[in-house]
Amino acid sequence: MQEFFEKCKQAKTIVANLTSLQKNNVLLDMANSLLDNTSKIINENKKDLKYAKDNDLSDSMLDRLLLDESRVQDMADSLKEIAALKEPVGRILEGWKSEQDLKIQKISVPIGCIGIIYESRPNVTSDAAALCFKSGNVSILKGGKEANYSNNIIATLLQDVLVKHSLPEEIISLLPDNTRAGVEKLIKMDKYVDLIIPRGGESLIKYVSQNATVSVVKHDKGLCHTYIDKTCDEQEAIKIAVNAKTQRTGVCNTTETLLVHTDIANKILPKLKAEFDKKNTELRGCQNTTKILDIKKANNEDFETEYLDNILSIKVVDSLDDAIKHISKYGSGHSEAILSSNYSSIEQFLNEVDSACVYANASTRFTDGAVFGFGAEVGISTNKLHSRGPMGINDLTTYKFKIYGDGQIRE
Amino acid sequence: MQEFFEKCKQAKTIVANLTSLQKNNVLLDMANSLLDNTSKIINENKKDLKYAKDNDLSDSMLDRLLLDESRVQDMADSLKEIAALKEPVGRILEGWKSEQDLKIQKISVPIGCIGIIYESRPNVTSDAAALCFKSGNVSILKGGKEANYSNNIIATLLQDVLVKHSLPEEIISLLPDNTRAGVEKLIKMDKYVDLIIPRGGESLIKYVSQNATVSVVKHDKGLCHTYIDKTCDEQEAIKIAVNAKTQRTGVCNTTETLLVHTDIANKILPKLKAEFDKKNTELRGCQNTTKILDIKKANNEDFETEYLDNILSIKVVDSLDDAIKHISKYGSGHSEAILSSNYSSIEQFLNEVDSACVYANASTRFTDGAVFGFGAEVGISTNKLHSRGPMGINDLTTYKFKIYGDGQIRE
Repeated sequence: MQEFFEKCKQAKTIVANLTSLQKNNVLLDMANSLLDNTSKIINENKKDLKYAKDNDLSDSMLDRLLLDESRVQDMADSLKEIAALKEPVGRILEGWKSEQDLKIQKISVPIGCIGIIYESRPNVTSDAAALCFKSGNVSILKGGKEANYSNNIIATLLQDVLVKHSLPEEIISLLPDNTRAGVEKLIKMDKYVDLIIPRGGESLIKYVSQNATVSVVKHDKGLCHTYIDKTCDEQEAIKIAVNAKTQRTGVCNTTETLLVHTDIANKILPKLKAEFDKKNTELRGCQNTTKILDIKKANNEDFETEYLDNILSIKVVDSLDDAIKHISKYGSGHSEAILSSNYSSIEQFLNEVDSACVYANASTRFTDGAVFGFGAEVGISTNKLHSRGPMGINDLTTYKFKIYGDGQIRE
Repeated sequence: MQEFFEKCKQAKTIVANLTSLQKNNVLLDMANSLLDNTSKIINENKKDLKYAKDNDLSDSMLDRLLLDESRVQDMADSLKEIAALKEPVGRILEGWKSEQDLKIQKISVPIGCIGIIYESRPNVTSDAAALCFKSGNVSILKGGKEANYSNNIIATLLQDVLVKHSLPEEIISLLPDNTRAGVEKLIKMDKYVDLIIPRGGESLIKYVSQNATVSVVKHDKGLCHTYIDKTCDEQEAIKIAVNAKTQRTGVCNTTETLLVHTDIANKILPKLKAEFDKKNTELRGCQNTTKILDIKKANNEDFETEYLDNILSIKVVDSLDDAIKHISKYGSGHSEAILSSNYSSIEQFLNEVDSACVYANASTRFTDGAVFGFGAEVGISTNKLHSRGPMGINDLTTYKFKIYGDGQIRE
């Protein structure tokens, strides 16, 4: 492995200094190569699917694994979209002249070598590789074992294009040792690797965060809350709450817990239930909720759970302060919304709730790189540092200071 | 300790939501309290000095420990300067409207709870506490044991001012357990602590980086290089090289290794030696250097050493590429300079050298928050992520997205 990491380090300088045009040409060639090799990719993917079926993986897992012609087309389109993004390297973020007449530029540069750990969906392999490449980074990819054949053929095709362009194939690599032991090695390679992005289950992310010596930007769970204030527009609040829970249930920006101000609980909860019933949402309520609605009781564990399913826990709160306290205790710092018509309640909620995205009168489902206008999304960071919330390609850069002098010495 | 961290967590929301005026009034009161209690501080400091003398600490260590009237005045002045800094919280970093007409603001917010680990100089206690406070953060400070009495009195005075303003004293605390075991606990408290900044010796920083589960921004060593290109202005190059090494020798932005292009080595090295001799600098050279100069031989260890002393290692290189390779192998990513009159050599050096600060024709000694115009300095980060190079108070903030809607749901 040592030799592999040495080669990755050497590749850093090369990819960091490619021109925008060079990078975009490579990305377009990669897109074409995926299209030209669609049947090859589908054949390899079938091996993964067979293994998954033989091992009784769930239908949703099988769906996430599956590559067909249209999905390969999507992968290729995504590479083209990434090629079309504005160049992320070399942006002058700030620039000024010091007292000593030094011209100082704060300028975006690639991070270096990025390890990305993810699961199931093989399209992440080409997406993540392309985002890292466009931002001038070397990528080391560790996909799920269940997608081994698919990830291998995709990475090989991308590497072939690199070699065709006389570039080192280590610019894009699958982690050679695709086991937990390999991951353990990767996350401790701080001499070679500059950032680890773990995307996936809670236990994986916890393991990486606890054991990495490399910097980590987590894409952790979203235990999102929507709080309905006593002053809300009732119809609008119901519409938003239902959307925040049910528009898509398996994703991180979906609301898992609804907080309702006690003053309007009697009036709004039955109406909410009527709408959630239309969506077949299972409701679980706190003691006060179950006095109003005939639903299952929510226990403490419910409030700690990211259901990723069509289930919603409901809690009646005595005040805005109580809502904020509940979020501070149970939230994952991802996305929370207040539905209210009161100016100062909204401002207090947006200021005091310590989450990446805080919404007034809109669905939490909007936390998304595309909605935010970032183009192709790296993911949603639940880190507080470096990058928080939806990550665009610019978040795969850091900065350096370039200082232009003409003989200055320090007195 | 658990209870202590819980209280720190509760204090986060309070300090994060103070107005600028409130914070500045507290800081000015703190400055006055230090001045009013000068003799008390000096008395406590004497206990530290006595202990240090009894234990044969070096003179330079004693000097760093010492607090006299003028140094307490400096500490108070520093608090006033921090009060005068522009408010770091609530800056709108970006703002735009999404396709759905959501008004999105990317806005600076406090990081939360920051642990700072440092050594010797007791003025860091008030500086670090004030910088964290002004940026809306709770601070947990772990100073060196040799400054225990001084740090305790300073922290107590600051806390008294907090209490006088009806604020929780946990906004500024010394780590209750001032031992290695206490540090180990602190750096793993990721549920409560959001950032650790270790400032100090290499072994401390390595220990923290390897063992923390909290995010770390290192203030690590500066093994800085100055490269004299074949096309340099000879007189200017000598002036800058001498300044970069000798203007102050015990600090991280001082040049430790001089790289000299082979084409000018014969001509410039004797002149450099003549100037360095005037400054009593000990020169150690590579094999080619020692063919030209009668100086001690530099071994591999020299090129790996941050001397923090009036010693300079010199290496003759065959090309700009070799200079960049040497820096990539031995440098610490802090500050490097090229002295050259050639446009493309300068651009290549500034682009390819992967350091926080890269200079053309100026002394590496300029890497400094004050020079950069940041006001009071948090330190010099050798991290690549979150903050790189000189850190100002804005680097003690992160951001959140505030999203203002009027009923938007996701379709």
